[in-house]
This record gives sequence, C-alpha cells and structure tokens, in this order.
Amino acid sequence: IASQDADWLKINVLDLHFADVAEILRPLSNDEAKYIYYLMDEDQQADVLMELDEDVRDRFLASLSTKEIADQLENLDSDDAADILGELSDEQVQEVISQMQDNDAIGDIVDLLNYDEDTAGGLMQKEFIKARVDWPVDRALVELRRQAEDVEQVFTIYVVDDLGKLVGVLSLKRLLFAKPKTKIADLFNGKNIISVKTSEDAEEVAKIMEKYDLVSLPVVDLQNKLVGRITIDDMVDFIKEEADKDFQLASGISEKIESSSTVWKISRARLPWLVIGMLGGILGAQVISGFEAQITSVPTLAFFIPLITAMGGNVGVQSSAIVVQSLAKGNDLFGSVLKKIGKETLVALTNGVLLSSLMYGIGMLFEGTTLAIVVSLSLFTVIIFASIFGTLIPLILNKYKIDPALATGPFVTTLNDVLGLFIYFTIGMLLYHI
Amino acid sequence: IASQDADWLKINVLDLHFADVAEILRPLSNDEAKYIYYLMDEDQQADVLMELDEDVRDRFLASLSTKEIADQLENLDSDDAADILGELSDEQVQEVISQMQDNDAIGDIVDLLNYDEDTAGGLMQKEFIKARVDWPVDRALVELRRQAEDVEQVFTIYVVDDLGKLVGVLSLKRLLFAKPKTKIADLFNGKNIISVKTSEDAEEVAKIMEKYDLVSLPVVDLQNKLVGRITIDDMVDFIKEEADKDFQLASGISEKIESSSTVWKISRARLPWLVIGMLGGILGAQVISGFEAQITSVPTLAFFIPLITAMGGNVGVQSSAIVVQSLAKGNDLFGSVLKKIGKETLVALTNGVLLSSLMYGIGMLFEGTTLAIVVSLSLFTVIIFASIFGTLIPLILNKYKIDPALATGPFVTTLNDVLGLFIYFTIGMLLYHI
Repeated sequence: IASQDADWLKINVLDLHFADVAEILRPLSNDEAKYIYYLMDEDQQADVLMELDEDVRDRFLASLSTKEIADQLENLDSDDAADILGELSDEQVQEVISQMQDNDAIGDIVDLLNYDEDTAGGLMQKEFIKARVDWPVDRALVELRRQAEDVEQVFTIYVVDDLGKLVGVLSLKRLLFAKPKTKIADLFNGKNIISVKTSEDAEEVAKIMEKYDLVSLPVVDLQNKLVGRITIDDMVDFIKEEADKDFQLASGISEKIESSSTVWKISRARLPWLVIGMLGGILGAQVISGFEAQITSVPTLAFFIPLITAMGGNVGVQSSAIVVQSLAKGNDLFGSVLKKIGKETLVALTNGVLLSSLMYGIGMLFEGTTLAIVVSLSLFTVIIFASIFGTLIPLILNKYKIDPALATGPFVTTLNDVLGLFIYFTIGMLLYHI
Repeated sequence: IASQDADWLKINVLDLHFADVAEILRPLSNDEAKYIYYLMDEDQQADVLMELDEDVRDRFLASLSTKEIADQLENLDSDDAADILGELSDEQVQEVISQMQDNDAIGDIVDLLNYDEDTAGGLMQKEFIKARVDWPVDRALVELRRQAEDVEQVFTIYVVDDLGKLVGVLSLKRLLFAKPKTKIADLFNGKNIISVKTSEDAEEVAKIMEKYDLVSLPVVDLQNKLVGRITIDDMVDFIKEEADKDFQLASGISEKIESSSTVWKISRARLPWLVIGMLGGILGAQVISGFEAQITSVPTLAFFIPLITAMGGNVGVQSSAIVVQSLAKGNDLFGSVLKKIGKETLVALTNGVLLSSLMYGIGMLFEGTTLAIVVSLSLFTVIIFASIFGTLIPLILNKYKIDPALATGPFVTTLNDVLGLFIYFTIGMLLYHI
C-alpha cells in the first residue's frame, strides 16, 4: 500500500465489498486513505464513507476541503449527508452547502437538518418511491423507474392521494405481477398502514418497527403528507447503539466511548460515577464512624462489612436490571408499580430466606451465635430493602424522563451500600446490647 | 370480550394489525384467546401466533390438539414452524408432523429441525425466490410469480446456476425495469456476494448482516448450493435478545427471564451470583480477620472498608464493560492484549491520581495525616489493580469461549473486593507500623 501501486490496489482492494474497504482504510494515514479513496468511483466512495467509524470519518473529512466534502455529500443518501453535516460547525455547514450544485439534494438535506437527531424526522431519508393512487400500473412503472434511480433499496412503494397524503402501501412484488392496465387503487393495501410523524421519538420508532416487523416505515408530517421513510438498516444501527449506551450507563460510563477513544476521553467518561461512588464511600465511612464504639468492643463486626455492602449492591443491580429491561420493552403500561414491587418482594423473600439461612449455618460454624444471628438477619433485611430500592429507583427515574439504565449502575450500588451499613450496625448494636 | 359477541369482535379487533391483536390476546384466558383466534383467517392466525410472547404461545399451543397445531404450522413460514416444533417434546413433534398434509412444508420443516438453533441453518427460512442464471426476464417473471405465492416478503432474488449453486443476486427493482428478453445473466450482480454456510454461528451472522447492511442473507450448504435465507426481522429479534442477555449477565442474572416470569424462576436465575457474592464476602471477612489487631488499635481503618471495595468494584466493572463491548464488535482482532492493558493502565493512572488526590484532601480535612495517606494510597493502588483485572478477566473468559459479559457482573466485583481489602489493610499495617 505504501508504494501506492494503483493497479495493484485496484485489483486487490477496490473490488472488495465497501464494508471491507472501509476496514482497510481504518488504520491508514489520511494521505494514504485519501489516495485509495479517490481511486474509487463515486458510488463506492459514498458507501465506504458511511461505513467508516465516526472517529475515522471525522479525521478523514477534516483533511478534505469544503468543496471536496460538498462533492461527496451529493453522492450520499440524504439522511447520511445530513448526519455528516450535523457533525460539522455551523460555518462549515454553510460553506459546504454553498459549494453543492444539485439543488434537489440541497433542499432535501437542509430540510432534514431541521429535525432533531433523535426523532423520526432526524432518522428518515428523503429517498423513497411513491405512486399516486389513481395511476394505472403501466404509468406507475414508468414513473417509478425514474424515481428508482435515486433510491438504493426499494422495499415498499408508498401510495399517496392527489394531495400527497399517505393512503397505503404497495409491495414491489404485487406491482411486478400485476396487469398493465390495473389501477394502483385496486392493488394497494390501505388497511392498517403504520406510519410515524416526523416528531416521533426515535426509541418509539424502533419499538414500532420491531413490533410490526417492518423493513421500512413511512414518515408523515402533521397533515399526513408523506415526507420520508426510515429503513431497517438505520434502525438496526440505532438499536445497537442504544443497547451499547444502556450497557455502558449500567456500568457507570457516562459518555459514549469506544475502545479506540483517547485515554483522556475514556477517563473523563468514567470519572463522574467514580466520584459519586467515592462520595458514597465517604458517606459510608460516616455511618460506620457513628458505630465506632461497637467496632471497638466487637471488632469481628467489621469483618462482615464487605459482605453486607456487596450483597446489597448485587441484589439492587439485579432488581433494577429487570425493571430497566421491562421498561425498555414498553411493558410499563401493563403492570402497575405496586404489582412490580410486590413480585420483587416475593423474589427477595425467597432469596433472602435461602441466603440468610446459609449464612446463619456458616456463621454458626465459624463464629459465635450472636454474630451469626446479626449477620444473617442483616443480610435478610438488606436483601429486602435493596430489592425494593432497586425496583423503585429506575421506575422513579423513568417517570422523570431520565434514562433508567443509570440506576443499574453505581447509583443503586452506592445507595444500597450506605443503607446496608446502617441496617447492619443497627442490628449489631441491638443484639449485642452495646 | 367476555360476551363473545362475534360481530363486535370482528369489527373492533380483527381489523387491527396482527401485532396489536396479539397484544389483546395476551391477558386473555386460553378459551377466550382461542375463540378470537378462530374468528381470524389463516394468514392472520399465523401472524398473530408468531407475535405472541413465548410464554403465552406455549400456554396457548398446549391447549390445542396436535391436529390443530399441525394446521397452524402449515400456514407459517418454515423457520417459524420449526421454532415452534423446537419447543415441543420429541413425541409431540412426531405426532404433529404426522398430522400435516402439505408434503413440501413437512420436508422444509424437518430439514430445518436438523440444524442447531444458534447457527445460520437454525435461523434461516426455506421460503425464498430464486432465478436460474440462463432464464430470460419474461420466463423469470412467470416462474417467480409462482414462487412468490409462498414468500411473504421478497427482498432480493437469488440467482443460481444449473446445479443450484448461488452465483449472484438480483434486486426486484432491476427485474422490474428490465426488457422482457434480457437474460438474467446480463442483469444480476455476481460481485461480492455475501452468503453464509448453514453451520455459521448466529452471532457471526448478525455481525455480517450488520456490517454489510443486508436485509436478507442467502444461506448455502457445503457445496455452495442455495438452501435458505435469513431475513432482517429475525436478525433484529436475535440482536435484541443477545443485548438483553448480555445486560442480564452483566447484572448477575444467569437465566433468560422476563418480568412476567414466575417468582421462583426469577429467584433461581438470581441465586447463583448472589451465592458467589456471599462466598466472596466471607472470603473478604477472612482477609479482614487477618488484620484484626490493626482494627482494634486503629478502628478508623474499618470506616473506609466500603469505600475501598466499592471503588474497586466500580472501576473493575467499567473496565470490563469496555472490553466486553469491544469484543462484541469483533474488535479483538485489531488490538493486542498488551496494548489494551497498556491503555487501560493509562486511564487508571489518570483517574487514580485525580481521585486519590481528592481523597487525600478530604482525608486531611476530616481525619489525620496517616489515615489520609493510607486511604488515598490504597485507593490509587486498588484503581490500578481493578482496572487491570477488569480488562484481563473478560479477555481470558473470551479466550476459553465463555461469554465475557459474565465478567462485568459480580465476578469482577467480588474478586476486586477481596483484593482491595488485602491491599488496603496491608498499606494500613505498613504505614501505621502495627
């Protein structure tokens, strides 16, 4: 590659699938990547550009002039072009747009830039195929052929009335096998048309596409006029990103990071929760210091501090994980809060009885009776409380529109640590009469 | 609904989308559900059946006779039918199959039952559309029309040679706009055809479909003969399930559960990790008991036990979450283990210095110099070790083909608790000269 042998590259690299080419470009320097990039034809360039990781793409685009960026954007689907512009500064956006020549493309992109990234409008693309309900099949075929030039993947033909309002859908399959003079009106399916408004929340869109097993979803404006479509491949990316985000949030990482992010970015993303965890630990120290007299007289009490805090944390995390997933599936509508807590309490009782009996047995074996009772009783109480808090906190966060996945992380753990310590030492104090 | 007014139901329920009908059936008793179910036509029955939650579907199927099940299966796509049979006992499967009448369907389903559930073979369906490379467009249209009757969603036409081997793909769009006498051979795309073998691992299939943005993926046998296809809607379900599983594993839940599972099932799924956490806590107690003399002479040492264990746990979970996600993306090929650990150590150093300085400040404010030094120095050491373990453990698990998401859970936390305690008290012993 370093030798920049264009013929060799053409044969060995450019014939690959664009996703593979993107992978090859990743570790290269900007100059090398640019060299290979410009060996490709326009369509391939656009495909490869969208396959690059965000970090790599930003670096690569920064090395291009606004004129070069403008040329690239004209080859992209409108949603991809808008995404790329969304990552640039306002002045850069203006400059790039002023350099573009295709007025249709400009119109589409500027239109898309108006929508919030996390709404249906922000996810949709303007490339889709529509047919008027009053066309016959042969005319539709001619019109659609023209439209299809701009549209990479045709899944469904949207049927609109003379005002541009969405009235139904028509599969390519049905069109393909219909007689030329049949009217679209007699072919299309106008029942149970699933569509979303441009302002619909992206998570809601994902749920709808999943629920109804859709590969593309029409987007309409407030007047029910068809303005775009969302395709399943964008949705798959979105679903994956959301799952990753939840997983990271639950692990106490506050910004979206990848293993290729810089050391400082990773550190910064992890710091907030660690500080909260540390403050929780200091609060825990305060709680224990309140029981200093007890520790001095029965030092063995200190031995089981980690057991109590760890179990409180583990149980809490388990409980919130279940609630978080059930919320993510939109199940909140079907079970009342009280029912959830009731069930969670039953689970906690079952595990609490089992584990604290086991703990009592082990305690009796190695330590005295009083200690065994204190530890097992505290364990039981902590399991019950941690379950209830673990269930309640994500429900409360969700109610105030905060991502409940936050709860599964250090938040619940820290709270349960402090609470568990308090329960443990109070029970210890009471039973030891100290 | 209770009054079983068929006309009312027909108007108000059956006209809904099948996903909505399934939602209505969910809370109903088997008899009520069955009543509504049999008011629907066959296609709608099949769609609704596949939309039901697994628990509800099993309950519902159990109330049907094998003959009734057989009738239902004939209306389903082959992969869905095989999935349902996969949930029944061997005798039931035999009985159901013997009651089926459509020999093609039987052949397809029996064939699919041979594949492992988590392979491409287990995910694929036998309904797809193929064209011979030597057909002209007009003949292809006639043949495809016949094939299309069985296939619900046509995304791509697979092009095969006279031996049935996959040689390329053809979009419906291209076929639709081609002249009748053109040969398929001149239309189809034979470059960079992405296909998988039947034995390919399901996770790998998901990665391939994501990477190449495919809506359907052809499946071939060892001789490269086309045997089925995997569609994106099945893959979306699979991706969601995997994400849920990872999230649960990371939260210390060992079986796949839903919030609708029974109390006992939920308890059982959560118990194993709690027992491990408890054993970890007992091990921690052993470690602390080794330092009983130190606690007796400096009881304030005990105050910071929760801080040290919590921080070790939090840092460890963060580190493994990053590794787990990077492994899930298949990035393991690009960064060596040593590089990962080096970077992680840098992150740990950054956060370690920041947090332990902060801790030192707080410690000086509230406690004595020695304690401030002990706690902040231990915190620093624990952060470094927890990061390294948090990074190594998922890598090791992955090497031995164990799901690395296990590591993010109580596993890493427990290990880091014990290790952190040991570090903390050793430093305390050294600095206090006790």
